[in-house]
Amino acid sequence: MKSSFIVIEGLEGAGKTTARDVVVSTLREHGIADIQFTREPGGTPLAEKLRDLIKQGIEGEQLTDKAEVLMLYAARVQLVENVIKPALARGAWVVGDRHDLSSQAYQGGGRGIDSRLMTSLRDTVLGEFRPDLTLYLDLSPVIGLQRARARGELDRIEQESLAFFERTRERYLSLAAEDATIKTIDASQSLEQVATDIRLTLIEWIEQQRKQGAQA
Amino acid sequence: MKSSFIVIEGLEGAGKTTARDVVVSTLREHGIADIQFTREPGGTPLAEKLRDLIKQGIEGEQLTDKAEVLMLYAARVQLVENVIKPALARGAWVVGDRHDLSSQAYQGGGRGIDSRLMTSLRDTVLGEFRPDLTLYLDLSPVIGLQRARARGELDRIEQESLAFFERTRERYLSLAAEDATIKTIDASQSLEQVATDIRLTLIEWIEQQRKQGAQA
Repeated sequence: MKSSFIVIEGLEGAGKTTARDVVVSTLREHGIADIQFTREPGGTPLAEKLRDLIKQGIEGEQLTDKAEVLMLYAARVQLVENVIKPALARGAWVVGDRHDLSSQAYQGGGRGIDSRLMTSLRDTVLGEFRPDLTLYLDLSPVIGLQRARARGELDRIEQESLAFFERTRERYLSLAAEDATIKTIDASQSLEQVATDIRLTLIEWIEQQRKQGAQA
Repeated sequence: MKSSFIVIEGLEGAGKTTARDVVVSTLREHGIADIQFTREPGGTPLAEKLRDLIKQGIEGEQLTDKAEVLMLYAARVQLVENVIKPALARGAWVVGDRHDLSSQAYQGGGRGIDSRLMTSLRDTVLGEFRPDLTLYLDLSPVIGLQRARARGELDRIEQESLAFFERTRERYLSLAAEDATIKTIDASQSLEQVATDIRLTLIEWIEQQRKQGAQA
């Protein structure tokens, strides 16, 4: 079975870290041992520097929406070219904490950046490169932000208004509805049930891939 | 006369600093006292951080051409929105050491980044915003690099091959040929003659602007 790029997406507090553990244990059960983790923004020395600038901002300077999205794509192209593609090429699986869908949802939906700019950036920067599977953990931002706040201090983006996160969630849901590679998981359920849903969704997807591989 | 954005462009060693002094003294002779200087990439705290990353690179990581151009545009939009537009709005003139034409020439020409991507980035990031006048100091890169080397250690971009700078110069020349707001100055002449050419070009442009302003 060919190595794949699996992405976990969702609002702050949706349970992405727990989801990653479930994904990894499920992959291992299927004999997949070589797994590379990524997180976005970040994952290379330069991308991590950009992550800090995006997350913390700069004292006394307004970070424009456009600069934010350009820096996110700069970080992403470094990660894709220097880490993700080489990992897939050597046969490793890649499990990502966020990828392009986050920009489409947060910057396109939350910040309301023109959708032509968002699509144009994605297509010109990433070309045809896309995740093979995205697990989107859907949760009301009211609950997600409570969880995120309970974890400690909020960064520049986590301090956005509830309306920002509502718009972000709406964009996640509408993009998931039109893309068969994005599977929506109800993250408002008990942790145990969320883990079960992720596991079953991933197993079903792996079985499909294997069937398709066998037919090809 | 409405405040304007004047940009000085050219390869390393073309004499941009001297040109800036000539521009400033000529503007002052015309009663223009409130002048804001900018340099690109840079000119805001965030843009200066991006400048360092672009100029020095990151130890052990390949900076992709796409990340480079995205970071340049992130720095540019910060400078335009936070410095240049506010300065023009308060009636100051802005004199810039490099602006968008550098990206079109170095990244579009030198690095060979797809011209649709370059145009799309410029238009989506900057909209209709353009300099009122650009003075392009044209010089053979052989001479320019000798001068730049004589000044000291070369940064990541200055270490590019001669062919890179030849492509950059060609792009500068072809863009200048099709844009009436870009005036080409022969920077291979004596310093005195270059200064005279800049002065006369700028005076002629100011007179034109005043006539147009009077007619309007």
